[in-house]
Amino acid sequence: MLLLRRCQRLTGCGCLTPQRAQASPAAALSAVRLASGSSHDQRSEHPGHSPSWRQALAGLLAGTGAVLAYGLHHHKAEQTDGISVHAKAQTSPLPIFSQEEVTKHRTLQDGVWVTYKGSVYDITEFVTMHPGGDKILLAAGGALEPFWALYAVHNQEHVLDILSEYKVGELKAEDQKKQQNLTSSDPYSSDPERHPVLRVNSLKPFNAEPPPEILSDSYITPSAFFFKRNHLPVPQVDPASYELQVEGLPGGVLRLSLEDLKSRFPKHTLTATLQCAGNRRSEMNTVKQVKGLNWGIAAISNATWGGARLRDVLQAAGYSPDVAQWARHVQFEGLDKDLTGTTYGASIPLNKAVSEEGDVLLAYEMNGEALPADHGFPVRVVVPGTVGARNVKWLSKITVSAEESSSHWQQNDYKGFSPATDWDTVDFKSAPAIQELPVQSAITTPTDGTVISRSSEELTVKGYAWSGGGREVVRVDVSLDGGKTWQVAQLRVSDKGQDPEVSPPPGRAWAWKLWELTAPLPPEAHQLEIVCKAVDNSYNMQPDTVAPIWNLRGVLSNAWHRVKVKISDDEE
Amino acid sequence: MLLLRRCQRLTGCGCLTPQRAQASPAAALSAVRLASGSSHDQRSEHPGHSPSWRQALAGLLAGTGAVLAYGLHHHKAEQTDGISVHAKAQTSPLPIFSQEEVTKHRTLQDGVWVTYKGSVYDITEFVTMHPGGDKILLAAGGALEPFWALYAVHNQEHVLDILSEYKVGELKAEDQKKQQNLTSSDPYSSDPERHPVLRVNSLKPFNAEPPPEILSDSYITPSAFFFKRNHLPVPQVDPASYELQVEGLPGGVLRLSLEDLKSRFPKHTLTATLQCAGNRRSEMNTVKQVKGLNWGIAAISNATWGGARLRDVLQAAGYSPDVAQWARHVQFEGLDKDLTGTTYGASIPLNKAVSEEGDVLLAYEMNGEALPADHGFPVRVVVPGTVGARNVKWLSKITVSAEESSSHWQQNDYKGFSPATDWDTVDFKSAPAIQELPVQSAITTPTDGTVISRSSEELTVKGYAWSGGGREVVRVDVSLDGGKTWQVAQLRVSDKGQDPEVSPPPGRAWAWKLWELTAPLPPEAHQLEIVCKAVDNSYNMQPDTVAPIWNLRGVLSNAWHRVKVKISDDEE
Repeated sequence: MLLLRRCQRLTGCGCLTPQRAQASPAAALSAVRLASGSSHDQRSEHPGHSPSWRQALAGLLAGTGAVLAYGLHHHKAEQTDGISVHAKAQTSPLPIFSQEEVTKHRTLQDGVWVTYKGSVYDITEFVTMHPGGDKILLAAGGALEPFWALYAVHNQEHVLDILSEYKVGELKAEDQKKQQNLTSSDPYSSDPERHPVLRVNSLKPFNAEPPPEILSDSYITPSAFFFKRNHLPVPQVDPASYELQVEGLPGGVLRLSLEDLKSRFPKHTLTATLQCAGNRRSEMNTVKQVKGLNWGIAAISNATWGGARLRDVLQAAGYSPDVAQWARHVQFEGLDKDLTGTTYGASIPLNKAVSEEGDVLLAYEMNGEALPADHGFPVRVVVPGTVGARNVKWLSKITVSAEESSSHWQQNDYKGFSPATDWDTVDFKSAPAIQELPVQSAITTPTDGTVISRSSEELTVKGYAWSGGGREVVRVDVSLDGGKTWQVAQLRVSDKGQDPEVSPPPGRAWAWKLWELTAPLPPEAHQLEIVCKAVDNSYNMQPDTVAPIWNLRGVLSNAWHRVKVKISDDEE
Repeated sequence: MLLLRRCQRLTGCGCLTPQRAQASPAAALSAVRLASGSSHDQRSEHPGHSPSWRQALAGLLAGTGAVLAYGLHHHKAEQTDGISVHAKAQTSPLPIFSQEEVTKHRTLQDGVWVTYKGSVYDITEFVTMHPGGDKILLAAGGALEPFWALYAVHNQEHVLDILSEYKVGELKAEDQKKQQNLTSSDPYSSDPERHPVLRVNSLKPFNAEPPPEILSDSYITPSAFFFKRNHLPVPQVDPASYELQVEGLPGGVLRLSLEDLKSRFPKHTLTATLQCAGNRRSEMNTVKQVKGLNWGIAAISNATWGGARLRDVLQAAGYSPDVAQWARHVQFEGLDKDLTGTTYGASIPLNKAVSEEGDVLLAYEMNGEALPADHGFPVRVVVPGTVGARNVKWLSKITVSAEESSSHWQQNDYKGFSPATDWDTVDFKSAPAIQELPVQSAITTPTDGTVISRSSEELTVKGYAWSGGGREVVRVDVSLDGGKTWQVAQLRVSDKGQDPEVSPPPGRAWAWKLWELTAPLPPEAHQLEIVCKAVDNSYNMQPDTVAPIWNLRGVLSNAWHRVKVKISDDEE
């Protein structure tokens, strides 16, 4: 089981966060041992698949291809005992199968066959040992391409290597052609153009961050540079036919067009910083590999959002304080969905949604223009002070409910755990869904490895600082000696030449502060370890080091940020 | 100036927190140099006294004796340059003065004289160089005893040594007798009896904490063991004539008797933890001396409070949402006062005071009984999630206002600063008054230095964890190896055999959690460094180490708590 989870951590696809599977002795006995020259010294028992595990997968996988690829990773990682039972494909010429024959193999009884690039694979044995269980059968009898197209990260050599062991034949030439027509469609083909300066962590789905030095150039991040965090293809939405459903309230279902949203409710604007839970995950990877996109320090950005207040819309749909007697959460669903029709979803606590001080927006504008496609056109939720994952884009449905969203991203992802918790011991029910984020700051310039001439005499350090829950950053301390001594940075709350943002009321500081420190170069030093740490108005501080906050999913990475620079004695 | 502040840090009286004084060259020139064998290598310039400095003192000093003692500390610390100008008192027999003569010396023009234990002192020169300025003149022409009686900490040998240098004569025997009658009254004589188990940090005013192991014995801290933090003598209040004034609202002044408070408003109860901002200050002292009471880890306790909601009382006094157009704060005044009549005071943000979710109480019950005298009889404010200092005891007045309380404790104390900030550079206006506290936890058992027999095989570690702002503690990690590896503790939210507290709504987790971990003794270890750290539901963590959060006032000490124990190989 350990290996089973270890391989997940290597995919970095962000699509998988399995719960602890309960080992079934029967399943363990039927485990298929696989051959490999791998030096792994641990053997995996194939776990039985508890209902919660299946359910988790059903909610989370965003494509059966992901399940399959997950299993294939697993398979690879598990090649431990030197016994091969899969030599069969290599010993005789391979038969030709028609698509019709392939299609007959869609169950464990009949065998589970799939095709990929013109070859036919019998993955029955693979499926029996695979924790994806029922879900993987969605691909049975057909082509893998549409599934894998959702998660390009699975299209890797070692995954294909593993698949090749299951090859049982070739697909009839005629059927290959038909399939090419069917499978050539790329679900990401209608994704928008992006600015080339972005650093891409994943193309499909698109996840990218700006270079750090761009972040601190402007208090309001231009939309093109604002970090992109998509879980699925960007849906194309016709604003004329767009409809938002509001459910769960005594008034019945309220349906709103985009025009309704703009005309029936007062427009509010607010400047709010959004941050991905995985911002700075790469620093956790330096401690021990975690699962997820390898974000640098720029999965955070600041924009001005315009839209209707969620509170106003809920009231129009029949919300009254009586509802709070039984309701606890407000769920959101996006229009972005996987091949099984599962949409992205999340929820926030009801009191955040309905409080006048919660400032939750159904935003249709970003930085004074219609929302860009990557940021949720035509409507997204902006939940200021709350982790990016709850700011659901391409919003289609709002549900007031007694329960949290059952979405994978609410239940089995975006939670924090102890560094002691691994994929064997993790119980996703034991931790609350991340809502408010902890205090954060990072150095955007200079970047790690910069060489500074001693003749410049001074050094300017810049960065950002922000805290969740509307807590205002009140101070940023900067050290040039690895944290031994500190200086207090200057804070900035507007773009140069612009009026500063009006000081926010207590508990409603939704926007970051940029900061800057200019200090003399220490005369004797040849290297500086620059460190920053922020303090918010609850006087929460960032932890000193990464290892004690390490967690298997690599979220909530907010230790002191450290950058090393060299001082060169060369003349300029 | 550096020395000027350094000596304050040594008093530990908790009464002084000066702002940065602006150096005046003229004052510096007139500075009196004093003789001493001290090895100090720094010279102090006597600062000019900016109005803000005077104002700060006026608000904060809680007794002129404190100013004087402060100055005398200062004097001592400043004996730097080997030049004595104060040998005069030693060279001739001292004259006898009547009280009438002494009383004539009450101004800088006439000279400033004071008496202390039958001797007469001319402190004119001392006053000219003293930053207390006008304030110190309150003692002029009279006895020091009543002032010093408020802060027993000033009654120290080195303070008396300094005073002796200013001695100019003896008080007439007859007047000495009169004075004894006048000054023998102890302002603390009516303070209540306290439980002998308390560890006393200061007797006058009374400040004490329970032994740590008692804290984790009960989820609800018995009132007798609840930490005591008084700034002044405990006022004696007659409940029959007690009156609470509510001011600043359109309805004019509302006056409420204790009976009104009990009968006119619904009684609410809540369990809330209070923590002093200085809890765990002693750990900051191990880095570098700070100013303030040397609290251990037990300036925190948990009680059930009963009373009227502040929100209800404000509404009865005319509060409506319109008030929030101009009002921002709610100020509280206590009945505890110093000799100048200055009462203890503090304020909280208006939105905390009026929010249904703020749960602020005007409490008249603690753990099911009338408030004990040390905890604010007959009425105190309980501001759950907020630093102890805002939970004003012996409440006399509530004022809704545009401004924060001008009280010393709001403006010039109970604020956090960078470790880089010292008494020379501190600007109290630059930091917000502490309201919500950061996440906290500590180990109550075993205590530091405990010896554990190896034959016991297991170790049980217990402690408490709490966070400010209603943020719920969701996890406590415990390490037995100084923070290298971690285990997750069990959390507890009620006393054994009691029903657990109902899970609080989001943002309203006001009470601590007790925690416990039982783990095998590591077989090879001879010493363990036990560490704990808590995580709240905003996923804020405690910082790893003390030095980077060190601050001159020693507040907000919430680094990982560490306890070292030995493992003995002796048989039990």
